[in-house]
Amino acid sequence: MNGNGVHGKTTVNGKTLSGKGVHGNGIHHVSVNGSLYPAKAKSRRQRWEVKPSEMSNNTLNPIRAIVDGMKLTPNPDKPMIALSIGDPTVFGNLPTDDAVLQAMKDAIDSQKYNGYAPSVGYLKSRQVVANFFSCPEASLEAEDVILTSGCSQAIDLAISVLCNPGDNILVPCPGFSLYKTLAVSMGIKVKLYNLLPEKSWEVDLQHMESLIDERTSCLIVTNPSNPCGSVFSKEHLQKILKVASKHCVPILADEIYSDMVSTTTHNCPSMASLSSDVPILSCGGLAKRWLVPGWRMGWILIHDRNDIFGYDIRQGLVKLSQRILGACSIVQGALESILNNTPQCFYNNTISFLKSNSEICFNELSTVPGLNPVMPSGAMYLMVGIDMDHFPDFKNDVDFTEQLVTEQSVFCLPASAFEYPNFFRIVVTVPEEMMVEACGRIREFCQCHYRPRSRDSNDLDQ
Amino acid sequence: MNGNGVHGKTTVNGKTLSGKGVHGNGIHHVSVNGSLYPAKAKSRRQRWEVKPSEMSNNTLNPIRAIVDGMKLTPNPDKPMIALSIGDPTVFGNLPTDDAVLQAMKDAIDSQKYNGYAPSVGYLKSRQVVANFFSCPEASLEAEDVILTSGCSQAIDLAISVLCNPGDNILVPCPGFSLYKTLAVSMGIKVKLYNLLPEKSWEVDLQHMESLIDERTSCLIVTNPSNPCGSVFSKEHLQKILKVASKHCVPILADEIYSDMVSTTTHNCPSMASLSSDVPILSCGGLAKRWLVPGWRMGWILIHDRNDIFGYDIRQGLVKLSQRILGACSIVQGALESILNNTPQCFYNNTISFLKSNSEICFNELSTVPGLNPVMPSGAMYLMVGIDMDHFPDFKNDVDFTEQLVTEQSVFCLPASAFEYPNFFRIVVTVPEEMMVEACGRIREFCQCHYRPRSRDSNDLDQ
Ligand SMILES: Cc1ncc(COP(=O)(O)O)c(C=O)c1O
Ligand SMILES: Cc1ncc(COP(=O)(O)O)c(C=O)c1O
Repeated sequence: MNGNGVHGKTTVNGKTLSGKGVHGNGIHHVSVNGSLYPAKAKSRRQRWEVKPSEMSNNTLNPIRAIVDGMKLTPNPDKPMIALSIGDPTVFGNLPTDDAVLQAMKDAIDSQKYNGYAPSVGYLKSRQVVANFFSCPEASLEAEDVILTSGCSQAIDLAISVLCNPGDNILVPCPGFSLYKTLAVSMGIKVKLYNLLPEKSWEVDLQHMESLIDERTSCLIVTNPSNPCGSVFSKEHLQKILKVASKHCVPILADEIYSDMVSTTTHNCPSMASLSSDVPILSCGGLAKRWLVPGWRMGWILIHDRNDIFGYDIRQGLVKLSQRILGACSIVQGALESILNNTPQCFYNNTISFLKSNSEICFNELSTVPGLNPVMPSGAMYLMVGIDMDHFPDFKNDVDFTEQLVTEQSVFCLPASAFEYPNFFRIVVTVPEEMMVEACGRIREFCQCHYRPRSRDSNDLDQ
Repeated sequence: MNGNGVHGKTTVNGKTLSGKGVHGNGIHHVSVNGSLYPAKAKSRRQRWEVKPSEMSNNTLNPIRAIVDGMKLTPNPDKPMIALSIGDPTVFGNLPTDDAVLQAMKDAIDSQKYNGYAPSVGYLKSRQVVANFFSCPEASLEAEDVILTSGCSQAIDLAISVLCNPGDNILVPCPGFSLYKTLAVSMGIKVKLYNLLPEKSWEVDLQHMESLIDERTSCLIVTNPSNPCGSVFSKEHLQKILKVASKHCVPILADEIYSDMVSTTTHNCPSMASLSSDVPILSCGGLAKRWLVPGWRMGWILIHDRNDIFGYDIRQGLVKLSQRILGACSIVQGALESILNNTPQCFYNNTISFLKSNSEICFNELSTVPGLNPVMPSGAMYLMVGIDMDHFPDFKNDVDFTEQLVTEQSVFCLPASAFEYPNFFRIVVTVPEEMMVEACGRIREFCQCHYRPRSRDSNDLDQ
């Protein structure tokens, strides 16, 4: 497996340090052609030929692939409005709380957090995360927490520990593209299970179940969802868990948007709090709820009430965490204060802002002929379906959103980037007046291109 | 290669959102056994069986493997002195500079660095690193710099972009263990080339060359060295480059200890400044020179004067950087000030402290019968050879260092952890009085166990 076989110690010519035998292990190399080591010139490279690895070739970022292929030339008469960026900080209207900033400065001043943290994070910081997310139905200890460089590394470690090349994972469609990017680069297959827009993006459970086979090593559930903004009810989560339990498939619960929920009809329980048997790796982080995505602080919460992951998976995660180490020690040091001292009103303000913006956007766009927005209940996104047969000017969602930039200087991500054509995603973190202006421009754009009856809708609608 | 084949879109029962066709792609599923999707119950798992992946099983950390297997029970009458930890911050005697801390606090106060940075780092920060390391012989632009989560991630990305499973890389012996840990976990073979203690740890060039074959995709050079503390002369670096050039093998130069050099006989040029043809990825970071290893700020400097890496390798690195994103945005924001405002005396003080401690340690241990310390010229380590045949009480370096803890409460890392038995490594960052005390105890220990003539030395010494 590894290169141990080639590891030959030198005692070149029996010559050793200071004339004493320092590390003679009895191996003496025989001189060949006046050289101690045989030359293998024939099997060596004669000219430069350095190519990127297959893994890097297979690291595909669909958002980049699609966006880089688009001609994004805004209308010079209208200032650009980007509704495409999943970063709540870009417009400055959603700063993090002062308590969060103060926590960082205190961590710096303490000078206690400049050295290496353990690869899984400081014990104290893991304890703090455990306490924050522990609940009676799914209690957590420090040892159940692994701190990571953003939720992205949490997802990377979780997939890496559960899956081998040739295995497959179940991923929501539409869904966050990173799962597939990581899996494909590691030779892991991706099976997309459908979410149903007409059911507020609930999982098509039958479809999901039909995809499971004996090489299915992980079911990924994103709740609340990027790109859908959906939040599953307790009952729906239980149904998903039942499928996982029936077929013995562990869950990677991407809960980075946990508690960013605006609906009043139900709250947003964690998957782990609803299951007593399915082993769950819950991935999260500071990025969204604390509005500091650049700080790269994430975590894995290991929920394993039935001891199915056991010592081995935990140990596997520890080993993988030692590859490049995780989160910045300063942020780790600040974590206690960030989690315990951020005032409740900070979270509430973010949620009510997102809710209000979502309503503005949904109300505006639901009266636009040809568009079908789906009202979100959480996270910071809203998906809009396009009745493509009413927009014969455009081939698809990519074409549609590209032209929206050209004419109206509004950029929304085509949902092809989430493997879900004929939708586009709106990020609802922009300032309210921008949201209003953007919706007005989208309306104008659609009015301009809408055709009441597409040429061949008669054939297709039967 | 990927899971595209399984990606079937739903238009379940032709039912669509709001009664309008939102994403019909013509695929209709046929009902089987009352279910829309055929069940494949037989090929699914009937009971839980979750095992860690092969990659996690193959992520081997030799330091942990060896240290965890040691019985480390200090002598209760003597306070423990750990000379084993490669973290200069643990004893508090080497704080970072105030300018470095201030830079961080300014970055936080600016509130400009809370959002996502580009995956390769802020352009401004890359520019600052480029300027800092640029020299006439090896000039750098911002686009030649990729910021990473510590030097560890820089090494990970560099190996990942250059090597495929089945390839091999050349790694120094003794050497930093991460190279092998990463490579083996990716199915890349490791060939260890010998360093020669009797030549201040210069590379055994013949041995190195003999290992090269057509699947050698990268030569790793660590200069200054962990664990040796050696610094190669310009001439020696040129010889290494010549071998790489002759056989067309790109170099990964681990230069994390660059400029941490105490020798006055020669300075420490970067490998890139000495080569006009060999493409070099130089890996570095803030960890050691700025004494903040926990902050996880590293970088890759791409040197490619002859356009051998070209666009493809650069693009491969960019793609790999998008997997989990890199360094904390606050540290990135602070980078300009850290690199430009840290006073020269800070660097000088660190170097003269390390030099003085190295001399104390070397002078003390070179008069201890049975030990062969090698005087370092840089980094923060010193290697000591053990004449095992004079210490018949011990099987090997692991045994020796374990017993040193038991009797003298001094812990040095056995160099088996660097694939180099019968040596141990001393970290010279501890406070001076600790260093003196530790050396005294090592002397006492050796005096206690030294046998002037080992039982069978007559046979071996011929
Ligand atoms: C669903 C989901 N998971 C994970 C992430 C990545 O989070 P982080 O920035 O902490 O790596 C994102 C970021 O947009 C996300 O939307
Ligand atoms: C030679 C060498 N390279 C790389 C590293 C890793 O550096 P970082 O902590 O920035 O990941 C170390 C750490 O000890 C090292 O000794």
